[in-house]
Amino acid sequence: MNAIGVDVGGTKIAAAVVTPEGKILNETRYPTQAIPPNRLVETIADAITEVKNGFEVGGVCVAVPGLILTAENKVIFAPNLHEIENIPLDEEMRNRTGLSVTVENDANAAAWGEFRYGAGKDVEHQVFITLGTGVGGGVITHGVLLRGSQGAGGELGHVTLDPEGPLCGCGNRGCLEALASGTAIRRLAREIANKQPRSALGQLAIERQVLGEDVTELARKGDEAAIAVLNETGRWLGIALAGFVNIFNPEVVAIGGGAARAGEFLLEPARKEVWLRARSPSRDLVEIKEATLGPESGVLGAAALARSEDGEYVLAPPGV
Amino acid sequence: MNAIGVDVGGTKIAAAVVTPEGKILNETRYPTQAIPPNRLVETIADAITEVKNGFEVGGVCVAVPGLILTAENKVIFAPNLHEIENIPLDEEMRNRTGLSVTVENDANAAAWGEFRYGAGKDVEHQVFITLGTGVGGGVITHGVLLRGSQGAGGELGHVTLDPEGPLCGCGNRGCLEALASGTAIRRLAREIANKQPRSALGQLAIERQVLGEDVTELARKGDEAAIAVLNETGRWLGIALAGFVNIFNPEVVAIGGGAARAGEFLLEPARKEVWLRARSPSRDLVEIKEATLGPESGVLGAAALARSEDGEYVLAPPGV
Repeated sequence: MNAIGVDVGGTKIAAAVVTPEGKILNETRYPTQAIPPNRLVETIADAITEVKNGFEVGGVCVAVPGLILTAENKVIFAPNLHEIENIPLDEEMRNRTGLSVTVENDANAAAWGEFRYGAGKDVEHQVFITLGTGVGGGVITHGVLLRGSQGAGGELGHVTLDPEGPLCGCGNRGCLEALASGTAIRRLAREIANKQPRSALGQLAIERQVLGEDVTELARKGDEAAIAVLNETGRWLGIALAGFVNIFNPEVVAIGGGAARAGEFLLEPARKEVWLRARSPSRDLVEIKEATLGPESGVLGAAALARSEDGEYVLAPPGV
Repeated sequence: MNAIGVDVGGTKIAAAVVTPEGKILNETRYPTQAIPPNRLVETIADAITEVKNGFEVGGVCVAVPGLILTAENKVIFAPNLHEIENIPLDEEMRNRTGLSVTVENDANAAAWGEFRYGAGKDVEHQVFITLGTGVGGGVITHGVLLRGSQGAGGELGHVTLDPEGPLCGCGNRGCLEALASGTAIRRLAREIANKQPRSALGQLAIERQVLGEDVTELARKGDEAAIAVLNETGRWLGIALAGFVNIFNPEVVAIGGGAARAGEFLLEPARKEVWLRARSPSRDLVEIKEATLGPESGVLGAAALARSEDGEYVLAPPGV
């Protein structure tokens, strides 16, 4: 049966009606910035109602960037989305839309999307990392989404890679997120621009603030300073991935999110670290590649995780 | 039905007939050192035949310290046990004992033992670490043993904690095993003994080689140098555990192996790092404690993972 996936993000709320085969039948987007104060719950409900538009659907899953208690369908921490923290989001949504609604972490939903329809569709074990402003993670092991005992599992962005490293948004030092996110790329770009003022990166940094996209663009044009920023970022990514490869022995590691557009500038040094640091046979088997669904992974994965009124999964196979 | 668990270790081969409730009905041990060259396969088979001794059993599982391809029941790498590498160990054993035999990684088996009968018997998500000469790991998530796509999963000892840290036996630098194993404790004890020659640890180091047990004993007597060795080791253990807590959101982290006898000298600084570095709600929920089964975890877990002639698990619940 069809289901609705909703992806609540910092820039947009996307909702889509999705078939069991992962085809999007209808889709809508609302810019998050345009939502009036205290209208977030209402806007999510409106998006669901709008996208449903006569389609028959079995359930809805709302993916949220934050910490979720899965069993309670409750968001306990969501930076910049405080309105939906610690409320019975499933009930609020059911009352407003008449549909059965569950809640999931956004990176878990995107990971499930890639697993069902994207980079991991032919495997049983997949590690998914999303490199955006922060770093999110989602793991499928033996075909099951790793949620952990409360729903907070799969937090791959906050493993420590350098105990005395840069401060992370989470309060820890030297997390993967502090070393290999969009934020980390901008920090490292400033550092390297200061050291190499004659590079194209250095010149741009004198004119204006350098963004992650700028670094990728300059790297594509061959600027050594920009390439160094991405390679160093990829090296840290690879140190983390080596650990995940040892832990999960996955067939596929898929890298998504905005910063993943740097492609091989990140992935090639990451693969090298995995080769140096992970063990056989895991390191020999694993394929480290870009995620394939782009920004649609969230709505696709959320839809595939939706449950119907009676608690049965609408799209996802048993064991999820 | 009863099953036989076999634990092949560097010092002994232990075999036991175990009931579904985890009671050992019969047990035997062979010192590994006393086994003549090229008689390892024969000795394991002898141990199985001896321990069976008229008991009715549904299957056997042999736990081996090394890398296993689960689907093939093949050991592909086992330091100091080369005789059993890359042979059809299941067939060899079936031919010699007449029983259905499977093969499992030893730390995975011990983790499963603790999960079924020990530190994790009341939970669904458990991380198990064994601190011996090396560091082994085993993870149960959503009630399922994490084997990964080939059987090489759960290698928790080789996550990188310090990219430029001490060389590990695996060839990598700064692994958990290089920083928080029995070997690491001896190395750190030498370093701190040299710096504090007047401490009890320093005095002992002048007389003879300091062993892990010595450090624990001196710490119990209040020697600050010995306490510093264990606290620093516990700190590194905690940095790794913080990552595992974020990744798996487990109810229990159980620490076993010889070095775990240092108890709170290791666990207290480890818990402190988890508190500093892991995220809520995972860090608030998790209980970090000593494993409860001691050296029996291997045979108990292996027995519980045994499969019968027709491939059905004898003791373990479905989904394993």
